Amino acid sequence: MHVKAQRKIAITVAFDGTDFAGWQRQKHDRSIQGELERCLSRMTNEDIFVHGAGRTDAGVHADDMVAHFTTGAAISCEDIQRGLNSLLPQAIRVFATRQVYGEFHARFSAMGKEYHYTIFNGPIMPPKLRLYSLHVTASLDFQSISNCMGLLTGTRDFSSFENSGSRDKDYHGGRGAVRTISKAELVRLETEYLVVFQFIGDGFLRNMVRNLVGTLLEVGRGKLSEKEFARILAAKDRRAAGPTAPPHGLSLHRVIYGE
Amino acid sequence: MHVKAQRKIAITVAFDGTDFAGWQRQKHDRSIQGELERCLSRMTNEDIFVHGAGRTDAGVHADDMVAHFTTGAAISCEDIQRGLNSLLPQAIRVFATRQVYGEFHARFSAMGKEYHYTIFNGPIMPPKLRLYSLHVTASLDFQSISNCMGLLTGTRDFSSFENSGSRDKDYHGGRGAVRTISKAELVRLETEYLVVFQFIGDGFLRNMVRNLVGTLLEVGRGKLSEKEFARILAAKDRRAAGPTAPPHGLSLHRVIYGE
Repeated sequence: MHVKAQRKIAITVAFDGTDFAGWQRQKHDRSIQGELERCLSRMTNEDIFVHGAGRTDAGVHADDMVAHFTTGAAISCEDIQRGLNSLLPQAIRVFATRQVYGEFHARFSAMGKEYHYTIFNGPIMPPKLRLYSLHVTASLDFQSISNCMGLLTGTRDFSSFENSGSRDKDYHGGRGAVRTISKAELVRLETEYLVVFQFIGDGFLRNMVRNLVGTLLEVGRGKLSEKEFARILAAKDRRAAGPTAPPHGLSLHRVIYGE
Repeated sequence: MHVKAQRKIAITVAFDGTDFAGWQRQKHDRSIQGELERCLSRMTNEDIFVHGAGRTDAGVHADDMVAHFTTGAAISCEDIQRGLNSLLPQAIRVFATRQVYGEFHARFSAMGKEYHYTIFNGPIMPPKLRLYSLHVTASLDFQSISNCMGLLTGTRDFSSFENSGSRDKDYHGGRGAVRTISKAELVRLETEYLVVFQFIGDGFLRNMVRNLVGTLLEVGRGKLSEKEFARILAAKDRRAAGPTAPPHGLSLHRVIYGE
């Protein structure tokens, strides 16, 4: 029997998550993983399993998600990319495709991720931005938000910002709720009323970015003081924090790997 | 019988045309005019007729469309705007509302319009831009396109870029196909592969901007020479020109009024 050489292929994917049930394959709903697997299986005549760097929730976008899969099909990386971009819905695009070797794994090799959460802080939401940013009409205290974001960098237990009942021990690699945030910054594009909450970390708990943003917006609106925010962070108790910000403002901006 | 004072109200509207059958009211399909009239009629308990500065085709967007209507209802401009933005789909937003007087008419008082047609000229279309720009993968000769756009300014007969059988004599005010273009410029945002064709004119024939862009792209691709473009413009014959560019790259950027 002829055994075909197996190759491991990594792809970089951007998607508009508006019309998807999230990254993870679903039985009945369209998902990003499901769409990629459907198209790759069709191209290779194999059952392709796509491993993503992480899971994104329904409605969350990605500028630069990384995923990998293994195939015995003799298709060049160029043809894989061209084939995917012709078969996939336009809301999903593959920007880079390369063969990877050895132990590389889209999820386990990732050293960190960068997430951006965008709000539109003007009076009336421009229609073209409505799918990619959260509309916040309240005037916000950006200095207080920035001060609170300054408290987030470093290694700490982020239980207060993890959605309860959602922990997957294996997925989190036994680290509990301890994560290291290396960047937490507010970037304002004042001319366009856009404000971007940027976070880089070695990992993020389920809904952590959306819970952080939801709570930081309470600070910005003056409903929580900086002191209370610090107390919530220290409490390690989800019930202490603010609401979960909706998904459509969130984008997985990039996945960080070592050399 | 008590006769309520009639006021004329002008509104400035932005919309994402993706899911609409265009500006004009339709029997069965959702249109921008139809949505505005539905919401205003509900708010005022009157049959409101909305007059737009022009008609946009299905799929075309607007940053700054102007329209007016007359009402006897005693609702402040502020409340009209707030009511519309709460009743309208999020793809349509009202940015300004003011009372207008005398002869003002959204269409007849307009001195001109500015249209922007956006193309994405990189290899792979970012999902978030796909609804608002045309994907052109070919490498384009921008110098030739600019040279041809330079031929468009001034007052001339644009029959070559008017869709045949579509003339509405009344609508065009008896000017035939003669229009004055005061600006026709290419703006390149090179870092983002975005190229915007910008046109200001005292009026535009049906599909004129899309026909111009479709023909200019043929020049950019080297399928038409600058000389041939000049000949098409002079021919006053629609059959001479290139294809109609698709609607989703086009946006009515603003309507120009005098003081």
